Amino acid sequence: METIKSLQNEKVKNLVKLHSKKHRNCTKQFLVEGEHLIKEALYANCVSLLILQEDTINIFDYAGKMMYVSQDVMNKISQNVSEVKMIAVCEMIENNSEEFDRFIMLDNLQDPGNVGTIIRTALSFNYPKIYLSKNCVDVYNDKLIRSTQGAIFKVDIEICDLKDKIIELKENNYQVFGTSLKNAMPLKQIIRVDKYGIILGNEGSGVSNEVLDITSQNIFIEINNFESLNVAVAASICMYGLIK
Amino acid sequence: METIKSLQNEKVKNLVKLHSKKHRNCTKQFLVEGEHLIKEALYANCVSLLILQEDTINIFDYAGKMMYVSQDVMNKISQNVSEVKMIAVCEMIENNSEEFDRFIMLDNLQDPGNVGTIIRTALSFNYPKIYLSKNCVDVYNDKLIRSTQGAIFKVDIEICDLKDKIIELKENNYQVFGTSLKNAMPLKQIIRVDKYGIILGNEGSGVSNEVLDITSQNIFIEINNFESLNVAVAASICMYGLIK
Repeated sequence: METIKSLQNEKVKNLVKLHSKKHRNCTKQFLVEGEHLIKEALYANCVSLLILQEDTINIFDYAGKMMYVSQDVMNKISQNVSEVKMIAVCEMIENNSEEFDRFIMLDNLQDPGNVGTIIRTALSFNYPKIYLSKNCVDVYNDKLIRSTQGAIFKVDIEICDLKDKIIELKENNYQVFGTSLKNAMPLKQIIRVDKYGIILGNEGSGVSNEVLDITSQNIFIEINNFESLNVAVAASICMYGLIK
Repeated sequence: METIKSLQNEKVKNLVKLHSKKHRNCTKQFLVEGEHLIKEALYANCVSLLILQEDTINIFDYAGKMMYVSQDVMNKISQNVSEVKMIAVCEMIENNSEEFDRFIMLDNLQDPGNVGTIIRTALSFNYPKIYLSKNCVDVYNDKLIRSTQGAIFKVDIEICDLKDKIIELKENNYQVFGTSLKNAMPLKQIIRVDKYGIILGNEGSGVSNEVLDITSQNIFIEINNFESLNVAVAASICMYGLIK
């Protein structure tokens, strides 16, 4: 197989465009780097092209489209500072399963590490459905994907209008818990139910008031006055705390 | 007051040296950047020099040593990519209080964001004492300090040999809980006590076996098979879960 060595190659240029959210949304494709994440992507059957550095042995049992490139070209396609040897082009898969007992809803979260960690934790605690408001950080952001440790390929992510979705979920007998420091009940006092979800909000401003107004109940985590929790930490404690 | 504009100024050169762990340990000083963190440092009474960009108004009620510098010099002293207007030189304060009911112990943690988030969460849940093994990431690392959101100035941090410390703590009637996936009890089944601490381990390899061997009890968080939790998330759930 031919090795692409020119940074000016059209294919290379198109792959680099996947660094931008706009181009990812256009093509419905995104990049995944490193052995562990690529394995998870292959397992999820969403890889459409595997790019290997020319001296790298193909350790994957993958019969799809492949491309060999020089390390220079690899560095250009990569979104990481440190050198990688393999990158996969993945297809965004819509996987809107309607059967789930628990969900997580993210309102305007901006830090990719926080969102990635929440997705990883959600999978670990069996919250398989994740709703994101339209103004959240892009879920195919490289740092976000890495923070999920591969969980991104195993949960069902939907970007939607949160208010419409909350009304719909309540009609379908889900308890929808907002998180808020005001007008809220302590987490330890909440009656555990089977069908429910938890809403987490922006790192600075929390869940928006218009969302908090239509939840079934708002909850808070009992901590020291004047202190605060990182949103991924708060999410994890709520997920753990509400399991029956 | 004179404004320092030369990058070659000896004072500036010495301040830049505080980027390195070695120099921080030598001088027992470290840098803190940004208004929120500097306020916390001033409140903790550990600021020995306040450096302001020449056009910045001194918003702090601070009567100690000050220095004005040009933005170029500021950028040189700063450890951030984005421009800052104020940096404080802080003194490392040893604050080995012996009176505490709960503690956190970190065994070979390497990610500054994880350690910072754990310190922040520990303060929020009233675990005022933090022990770090000697091979942990440096606690005066810039990213670590930022992740604590100022909690670093309010908890009591001690770097020590964990094995010796565990033996001592057990002699003083603390329950010492390790975290481990093997030979451990589910968190939900642990009997809550008043005096205890939780040990978290390295991001890849967890708590070392020689430490796990001498704990009072090892615990695990019940999650889906094949998945895992970020260590700051695991720490938070244990801290929350073990409170009486």
